[in-house]
Amino acid sequence: MARIVQKYGGTSVGDVERIKKVAERIKATRDEGNELVVVVSARSGVTNELIARAKAVCEHPSERELDMLLATGEQETIALTAMALHGVGVAAVSYTGAQAGIFTDRMHTKAKIKTINAGPIIEDLKQGKVVIVAGFQGINDDGQITTLGRGGSDLTAIALAAAVHADKCEIYTDVDGVYTADPRVVKTAQKLTEISYDEMLELASSGSKVMQSRSVEFAKKYNVVFEVRSSFNHNPGTIVKEEVAYMEKVVVRGVAVDKDQAKVIVSNIVDKPGSAAKVFRALADAGVIVDMIVQNVGRHGVANLTFTVPQGDSHRAQKALEPVLAEIGGGQVAIHEQIAKLSVVGVGMKTHTGVAATLFQALADVGINIELITTSEIKISIVVDIARVDEAARVAHEAFHLSQLGV
Amino acid sequence: MARIVQKYGGTSVGDVERIKKVAERIKATRDEGNELVVVVSARSGVTNELIARAKAVCEHPSERELDMLLATGEQETIALTAMALHGVGVAAVSYTGAQAGIFTDRMHTKAKIKTINAGPIIEDLKQGKVVIVAGFQGINDDGQITTLGRGGSDLTAIALAAAVHADKCEIYTDVDGVYTADPRVVKTAQKLTEISYDEMLELASSGSKVMQSRSVEFAKKYNVVFEVRSSFNHNPGTIVKEEVAYMEKVVVRGVAVDKDQAKVIVSNIVDKPGSAAKVFRALADAGVIVDMIVQNVGRHGVANLTFTVPQGDSHRAQKALEPVLAEIGGGQVAIHEQIAKLSVVGVGMKTHTGVAATLFQALADVGINIELITTSEIKISIVVDIARVDEAARVAHEAFHLSQLGV
Repeated sequence: MARIVQKYGGTSVGDVERIKKVAERIKATRDEGNELVVVVSARSGVTNELIARAKAVCEHPSERELDMLLATGEQETIALTAMALHGVGVAAVSYTGAQAGIFTDRMHTKAKIKTINAGPIIEDLKQGKVVIVAGFQGINDDGQITTLGRGGSDLTAIALAAAVHADKCEIYTDVDGVYTADPRVVKTAQKLTEISYDEMLELASSGSKVMQSRSVEFAKKYNVVFEVRSSFNHNPGTIVKEEVAYMEKVVVRGVAVDKDQAKVIVSNIVDKPGSAAKVFRALADAGVIVDMIVQNVGRHGVANLTFTVPQGDSHRAQKALEPVLAEIGGGQVAIHEQIAKLSVVGVGMKTHTGVAATLFQALADVGINIELITTSEIKISIVVDIARVDEAARVAHEAFHLSQLGV
Repeated sequence: MARIVQKYGGTSVGDVERIKKVAERIKATRDEGNELVVVVSARSGVTNELIARAKAVCEHPSERELDMLLATGEQETIALTAMALHGVGVAAVSYTGAQAGIFTDRMHTKAKIKTINAGPIIEDLKQGKVVIVAGFQGINDDGQITTLGRGGSDLTAIALAAAVHADKCEIYTDVDGVYTADPRVVKTAQKLTEISYDEMLELASSGSKVMQSRSVEFAKKYNVVFEVRSSFNHNPGTIVKEEVAYMEKVVVRGVAVDKDQAKVIVSNIVDKPGSAAKVFRALADAGVIVDMIVQNVGRHGVANLTFTVPQGDSHRAQKALEPVLAEIGGGQVAIHEQIAKLSVVGVGMKTHTGVAATLFQALADVGINIELITTSEIKISIVVDIARVDEAARVAHEAFHLSQLGV
C-alpha cells in the first residue's frame, strides 16, 4: 500500500465522459490498496470562458474578484469527480482549496502557498476515502479565496504530496512525459525515463511547456519525486527527481526551442559604470522580463548591449528605453523579432567538456549562424534565425546522439 | 440614508448584459446615499446545467457533493456583479455564503439557516462598500458548503435583512409584484400595493408562484418587511408586511389557482378508529404530501376519504395505499387527475361573514360544480374540474370585486 497524489489537468477532466474515465483510473489505483489524494483542474476552456465574462462586465477586473470567479472552475470539477467515483462505488470526498487547508499569501491571482494543514485530508484517507482537492486555489489569512497563477494545479499536487508525505506523485497531462526534444519537430525524439529537477527547470525556462518552473522548484525544495504521464494511455511517464550520480553519464538530456523571443540591441551607449544598471532598471519597472544578456565593449568607449525579451514585450521594452538613452547619452535601440532560442540541457555538462564546441561545430556544418550565446552550469542557450531553429534542433539532437539515448 | 438589502434572481442576472443593468440599478440606489447588501442567484439555467452534468457522471449524486457543485453558480454571479460595479465606479466586495457567516444545519440540499454572523458585512458597509452575497448557500459547523433548497436566495436576502437590521428588503424578480389573480388568466387582475405575511403564505401554498412559503415564514417570524418588484422596470411592487387593522377592510385579497393537483378517493373503508391514521402514515412514509382532506361517513359503517396530492405523486400514493387497504380491510382507490384547486385568500375573512356563500353562489350561477371544500381562517379552497378552473378564477375575482380593489 502506498500513499499517492495524482493530478489531472484540464483536458483530462474536459467533459463528463473524460471525468468518468479519470474516475475509472482512480478506482484502479484505489483497488490496488493505495491511499489516494487527487488534485483536479477546471475543465479545459472553463477558465477562459470565465475570464471572458469578467472582461465583458469590467475592462480591468479586480484580482480579488477574479480569484473568487476562477475558483469556481475547480470547485465544479472536484464535485463532479467525487460523484463519478461514487458512481463506480468508490468512497470519495471533495475539498476546496480552503477546506484542504492550503494557506497562501495575499497576492491574488498569483498567490504563494505558505502552509498546508493536511490533518483533515489524512483523516479522510485513513477512513478509506479518496480525497479530491481543487487545484490552483487556496485561502489567505483573511479568509479570502486566492489562486496560484499559471501551473497552479501542479503546484497544489506537489505541495500536497509533501504535506501528506506521499510515496508517489503523478502529474497526468496530455503528453506522455518529458522528451529529449519536441517530437513534432524532431521525429527521433525519445521519452526520458527520468530527469533531474535542475534539468527539468532548465528545459521549462527554455520553452519546453510540460510544466511551469515554480512547481518543479517547489518539488526540488521539498524533495518531492513526481512522474509526468498521460491520462489518455497507460504508458509509463518521466520521473522527475533529485540528481543522482549516474545521471551525469548522459551529457545532454534534452533540446528545447523557444520561439517566443525577440532580440533587443542597444548600441553605442557610453561605456561608463551604471549605464547597464539604468537600462535594466527601466525594463524591470516596465514589467519586461529579460532573458539572455550579452554586453561587449567596442572601440572608442562605447558599448553594445544585447538581450532577449518575450516577443509581446518588445515594443514595451523599446518605449521604456527611450528616456533612459536620453539620460545616459546617446545609443540606439533595434528590435529583431525573427529569432528563436535553442537550448541544450544536461547535468552531465558539469563533468564533461566540449559540449559547446560540439554544438557550435554541428551548427556551423549546416551553415546556421549563432547570434547570441549564454551558458549556465547545465545549459547552453543560443539565439539563431527563427527560420532555421527547427533544423538546428534536429542537428543538435543528432550531434548529442539523443535518438539513441538509452534512458 | 437607509440600509437596504436587494435580491436579484436568476433571470435578473441571466447574462453579462443583465448583470451590467443590475449594476446600474445598484449604483442608482447607492448614489442616493444608501448602504446596500445585494444577494444574487446563479445565472438562470446554470443550476440546471450543473445538475445535468452531475446526473451524467452519477445517477444519484451525493447531496454533499451536489451542494459543492451548485454553490459555484452563485459564486460566479457574485464575482461578476462585484466586477460590474467596479466597472461603473462603485466600491463593492463579494461574499460567499460561508464568508457572509451564514451558518446552517447539516441538511445538505435543503439546509436551514441557524445563525448569521454579519459582523464583517456591516464593517464593509460602514467603509462604504456595496456587499454582494451569494444567495442559496451557507456553511455548516463542519465547514461543509450547504445549499438552502428551492427559494433559497430569497431566504438568504430576508435572513440577511434581519441580521444587518436593514430598513428595507427588495426582492427583484421577473414579475411586477403580487396580483389579485394571475394576469394571464384574469385580465382585470390588479397589482396589490401591500399584502400581509399570512395572505402571502396562503397564496404561495395555493399555487401562486411568486415566492416559496419558507421565505415568507422567515420574514414573518423576524418581522422583515419586504417588497416584491421587477428588475426589468421601475414600477413600485408589492410590500409584504405584518397584518394591520385596515387590511381587514378588504375581505378577499387574491384568487389563486393550482393545476398541479390530483384527487385521490379511498372509498368503502371500514369506519373504525385508526383507519385514517394508517392511510396518512403510509402516504407520509412514501413521501407524498397531502393537501386537502375530506372524510365523510356513509351508511353501513363505511367511510370515504378524499384528498389531493401533487399530480406527479398520484401513482406513488396509489401504490403506497394498496397494502394499507389490505390490512384495514377493503376499500378502493380511485385517482382523478382532471381537477384543479382554486383558493380565495384574505385576512378580512376573519371579521367578515358570507365569503363562502358568495363564492359558491357565483360558481353555481355559471354551473361550475364544486368537488371538495376546505377552509382556513383566511382562505377558502375548492376543487373543480380543471377545464373550468380559469373561468372559475375570473368569476371569483369578479364576485369579490377584485378588479376594483383600490389598494
